[in-house]
Amino acid sequence: MTDERVARAGLTRLTEPGELRVTGAVAGAGAVALYDQLIAVAGDQELAQDTRPRLDRLDPARELEQAAARGIRFVIPSDDEWPHQLDDLAHSAPVQSMGGPPLGLWVRGPLRLDEIGGAVSVVGSRAATTYGEAVAREIGAGLARAGRCVVSGAAFGIDQAAHRGALALDGASVAVLACGVDRAYPAAHRDLLAHLATVGAVVSELPPGCAPLRMRFLARNRIIAALTRGTVLVEAAIRSGALNTASWATSLSRPLMGVPGPVTSAQSQGVHLRVTEGAAVLVTGPADVLELVGDAGEHLQEIPRAPEQPRDRLSTRHRRVLEAVPLRQAAGLGAIATTAGIELLATQTALGYLAEHGFVLRADSGWRLGPRAAPHLADP
Amino acid sequence: MTDERVARAGLTRLTEPGELRVTGAVAGAGAVALYDQLIAVAGDQELAQDTRPRLDRLDPARELEQAAARGIRFVIPSDDEWPHQLDDLAHSAPVQSMGGPPLGLWVRGPLRLDEIGGAVSVVGSRAATTYGEAVAREIGAGLARAGRCVVSGAAFGIDQAAHRGALALDGASVAVLACGVDRAYPAAHRDLLAHLATVGAVVSELPPGCAPLRMRFLARNRIIAALTRGTVLVEAAIRSGALNTASWATSLSRPLMGVPGPVTSAQSQGVHLRVTEGAAVLVTGPADVLELVGDAGEHLQEIPRAPEQPRDRLSTRHRRVLEAVPLRQAAGLGAIATTAGIELLATQTALGYLAEHGFVLRADSGWRLGPRAAPHLADP
Repeated sequence: MTDERVARAGLTRLTEPGELRVTGAVAGAGAVALYDQLIAVAGDQELAQDTRPRLDRLDPARELEQAAARGIRFVIPSDDEWPHQLDDLAHSAPVQSMGGPPLGLWVRGPLRLDEIGGAVSVVGSRAATTYGEAVAREIGAGLARAGRCVVSGAAFGIDQAAHRGALALDGASVAVLACGVDRAYPAAHRDLLAHLATVGAVVSELPPGCAPLRMRFLARNRIIAALTRGTVLVEAAIRSGALNTASWATSLSRPLMGVPGPVTSAQSQGVHLRVTEGAAVLVTGPADVLELVGDAGEHLQEIPRAPEQPRDRLSTRHRRVLEAVPLRQAAGLGAIATTAGIELLATQTALGYLAEHGFVLRADSGWRLGPRAAPHLADP
Repeated sequence: MTDERVARAGLTRLTEPGELRVTGAVAGAGAVALYDQLIAVAGDQELAQDTRPRLDRLDPARELEQAAARGIRFVIPSDDEWPHQLDDLAHSAPVQSMGGPPLGLWVRGPLRLDEIGGAVSVVGSRAATTYGEAVAREIGAGLARAGRCVVSGAAFGIDQAAHRGALALDGASVAVLACGVDRAYPAAHRDLLAHLATVGAVVSELPPGCAPLRMRFLARNRIIAALTRGTVLVEAAIRSGALNTASWATSLSRPLMGVPGPVTSAQSQGVHLRVTEGAAVLVTGPADVLELVGDAGEHLQEIPRAPEQPRDRLSTRHRRVLEAVPLRQAAGLGAIATTAGIELLATQTALGYLAEHGFVLRADSGWRLGPRAAPHLADP
């Protein structure tokens, strides 16, 4: 009988990631049984016929050895390193006819996948704006500061910005690829991927050497969502692939978070749409994200408040009298009482209190504003 | 017995707008009884004492005449022109210890207040950004296009931009002031207010001549919210007065809508906070606003969709084969079948279909991409 790891490695070579007929068969008969059927060109007629052209140079045992020699390991569900959050994919609804847990993950890099349980994915447009990249970088950095791993793809725009934000703070970061972990796609990110493979992890369902194909990105997106506690959508146009990752977060019942942007920016349109639909929760920075993915009470956030003004402490009556003191010149007691709509004696008492606390000053002709009164009149 | 209109006009001179003890007494004994008590310095001890300094030059009957001569009318609840949506203030919770319907509204301008039932308020920061002003203008224009009246204050920033957007399309627009309708505050908006008084309406609870005071803005905000079907918050810093108007919309159970902006902009912070708290619904333009304030089905909005690509119509199988055709050179049938993970004969059939529809072309050495295949490989 074939070894479990060899069978799973072989299956990643024979089949495409996220194929429901494959993940279904593995969940049923097991990876070894399916692999043995496919190499015997038996079993499920269509699947065996489809994988047949790939049988020619198939040698997963040797491939595992060669990968190991190049520092690439193949992590499977029975390994200690297996990130069990991926198992939720067995129960989540398919997205675009794909789904199921991966057969295994090919991994380059020192980061152990069983140690990124609190990870958060940060995804978005390749054609990101300067604004989007800055926010992604800040969220990446904020997650790193909180000891959270960042998970993303390796694309231009939001993906790279999120990684760079985490790396700048020596945080853990994982790139999930839609091609072999030995390939650099896009080529311009060769150094970024090499760096992630040195300090974090570069991960793929596809065996080394595989090329990136459109449908492999769709399958890859479910890994990004499933590896993490929640997905932050930083920028996404209406047709952005990041919205597919977003759908995976929703399918997995994990928080989907959207960063708002100018309504005039096409790159924020997809995010705003998810928020108005109620699929995504609006977040404005790492603190919001941590609150949403944290264990209860772990990241309780202080609600931003404006600095209190001295006048905020005044009673309604004292404030009314203060506001009746003109902005530029002094006024007499009678005039102030009339404007305030407060009786003369009470106005006088209030002015005494306000003078004592620096809000008004006694002047020859009555009272004028004191140093603590500012800011005085404003459309409040 | 004093005439109802005279009593109410007198009360707007004697008391401050939104005072709960005043609106409570009017709801109980009626405006005439309260007015007669106050001019006799009788009844509720404290209120009568407070209004006493204002009795000196009180002559509401003459004031009504003088106002009329200047084109200013005083609209009260028994008038046909009374906008009955204001009556909801009798049942809404106080905000910052203010509340209740106004005693009446002093009005300048040809627009009848009983004809703005579908109005929407557009409010926000005085210190708005160029972005915020552009969005406010667009929303003002979009409301005008839909035959909706715009209601706002008269401040710099969002207020004026919303009015200008509506006015540019000859729409109805109403400015609600925290001072007399004969005053221009801010002075720089003298022309804008004059224009609104010519084509729309300038409205205040305060009688002519009254100065703008901070607490009068707070009272004024409830009129803005109550006159309208919903309130759009375009930009608001954490301490913006527009958030007070927002609280009024909530207190009145009317939709509060927030326009998102860059998370890096302090002027959007208050809006984002209201959205994350769940108090405001995110809106990205006039279409969203109209959908939220419209009668059911009146403004059903088409959800934005990206233009469909020809490849979107392909079956999963055909797409898989198409994606296995390399980007730059031709490939043989075997190579394509292996990459696609689809059996040889099925791959050949698919390629035939794809060629027929322009997705691939037959080449000497096999197949290459055709004109309809673009955009091909992308992080989708």
